[in-house]
Amino acid sequence: MLRIFSTGGTIDKVYFDEKSAYEVGEPLIHHILNEAQVTLDYAVTPLMRKDSLELTDEDRQTICKAVVEAREQQILITHGSDTMTDTGRTLLDAGVPALGKVVVITGALAPAMFRDSDALFNIGLAFAAVQTAAPGVYIAMNGQVFPADGVRKNRERNRFERL
Amino acid sequence: MLRIFSTGGTIDKVYFDEKSAYEVGEPLIHHILNEAQVTLDYAVTPLMRKDSLELTDEDRQTICKAVVEAREQQILITHGSDTMTDTGRTLLDAGVPALGKVVVITGALAPAMFRDSDALFNIGLAFAAVQTAAPGVYIAMNGQVFPADGVRKNRERNRFERL
Amino acid sequence: MLRIFSTGGTIDKVYFDEKSAYEVGEPLIHHILNEAQVTLDYAVTPLMRKDSLELTDEDRQTICKAVVEAREQQILITHGSDTMTDTGRTLLDAGVPALGKVVVITGALAPAMFRDSDALFNIGLAFAAVQTAAPGVYIAMNGQVFPADGVRKNRERNRFERL
Amino acid sequence: MLRIFSTGGTIDKVYFDEKSAYEVGEPLIHHILNEAQVTLDYAVTPLMRKDSLELTDEDRQTICKAVVEAREQQILITHGSDTMTDTGRTLLDAGVPALGKVVVITGALAPAMFRDSDALFNIGLAFAAVQTAAPGVYIAMNGQVFPADGVRKNRERNRFERL
Repeated sequence: MLRIFSTGGTIDKVYFDEKSAYEVGEPLIHHILNEAQVTLDYAVTPLMRKDSLELTDEDRQTICKAVVEAREQQILITHGSDTMTDTGRTLLDAGVPALGKVVVITGALAPAMFRDSDALFNIGLAFAAVQTAAPGVYIAMNGQVFPADGVRKNRERNRFERL
Repeated sequence: MLRIFSTGGTIDKVYFDEKSAYEVGEPLIHHILNEAQVTLDYAVTPLMRKDSLELTDEDRQTICKAVVEAREQQILITHGSDTMTDTGRTLLDAGVPALGKVVVITGALAPAMFRDSDALFNIGLAFAAVQTAAPGVYIAMNGQVFPADGVRKNRERNRFERL
Repeated sequence: MLRIFSTGGTIDKVYFDEKSAYEVGEPLIHHILNEAQVTLDYAVTPLMRKDSLELTDEDRQTICKAVVEAREQQILITHGSDTMTDTGRTLLDAGVPALGKVVVITGALAPAMFRDSDALFNIGLAFAAVQTAAPGVYIAMNGQVFPADGVRKNRERNRFERL
Repeated sequence: MLRIFSTGGTIDKVYFDEKSAYEVGEPLIHHILNEAQVTLDYAVTPLMRKDSLELTDEDRQTICKAVVEAREQQILITHGSDTMTDTGRTLLDAGVPALGKVVVITGALAPAMFRDSDALFNIGLAFAAVQTAAPGVYIAMNGQVFPADGVRKNRERNRFERL
């Protein structure tokens, strides 16, 4: 059984024409997993709907607590890409790997609602990582499964790279 | 460095209007990996373009030889879903795990060219499995990473299930 | 009020993985019109689900009868592209323009289910033509609204051209 | 020969992940018309890239002048939906119909970049209207071709309705 926590980010950004605005909407993970014809058991818990630049320390503690207290050992977190590494570090500091959990953080550089998007691929990437990687905290982006403390987001090139 | 062998299957099916026919076209894996903004190094070797029901023993030997002789340790095979388990068994019989290789077979139940498809998710699934799983042969479908000798395709329900 | 008759063709082709086959499925026109946020009243009558190369004289008579007997004056027909002109001619011979009706035949060169398709655009093209053109029979393809007896499908170039 | 003026609006909104922002990008009309396999001759002149709520009287005069001075008689304008009727009125006041021109304003309620969008259908709708409607100014949205002075955008229901 897999637990999914959604926190927001580009992956869930939708366009509200009546507001002329573009905001994080409800988690699209169910639609993604249906389209992917996933048959594995999973449960989704939405924690927040924020751009990751807006996540506070309190938010990261909320995420951390949810991960630690979850009865599942396999946990996927959908998250904005800008501060994935910060949340990763918070989870490592909380001793998550020692609990035997495999936690994979992923998101997307283009919204799942877009015709061209890395969203579906990234969710697939994270889905496998959470089933096959050793206990630890990971970031799954740009086709790679990085240890959460061994990666950074390169802002200029808008992509993740090993430290 | 990751090596990708394409063999055909639904994932690469395209529609040729002028022939009023629907056939396996050129491998779409490059487009998929571009859309996914993958930054990992990989190389693609097209082996054949067949529906997996049409693969012969000779074809499976061709695939097997290519896998064994590849210098890479991480190998992804795109393949029709109907006989993935047969190819999986051929690779296990050839002693692939003992060579230290991680081989992941994937494909799709709907063509990558479709608006609604498991293709992108499955390629992501396989991409992570090939980086994190222990040496062995796997089938990545329906959101799961199955050991190749521990799964079957349920024809009635059109999905993969553990034996 | 607009009446839509669906006859099959590439526009409605779907892939049945379990049959490893690609066939005309149920009409996708409802999905297309929902996605287009169409608010005009319309009703859909499926007549058949055939590749237009397989339409018989009897089929064309069926289409013709349905058009003549429809109480609506604005009629859209979704159809395979290969024999649109034959159906067009049958309707002209039946004196449809003299009845004051505007009949527009359209379809697509790529299935509506594809990520890249002319389907949505063509349905839009036909939808406007049926509201603004003078009574007559038309073929709406490749961005143009052709009089049905003034166009042919160029097989080599897979497109419609004025005679 | 058809002339297309692009002014911005939701239809051309794209997401810039590095800015965490969602803005009007370059006109997507070329991509749309390629996907639609349009063979009619047309030329695109980008005038501005604005949300239509931000268009000033000066902007509307710019659009008006461009329409009046264009040598083409068939003109399509892509535009944000919120103030389409204002631009329509400006064109009517400038006596555009008397010049023998057919001007059709269209746009989209969801960006063309989205998997689900009215964009492609609306461009098709406008493309036909500009070829078959009598000289005048029109708004093509929600599957209908409205006279520009006979329609309003219903903000609560986010759609266009006849006055």
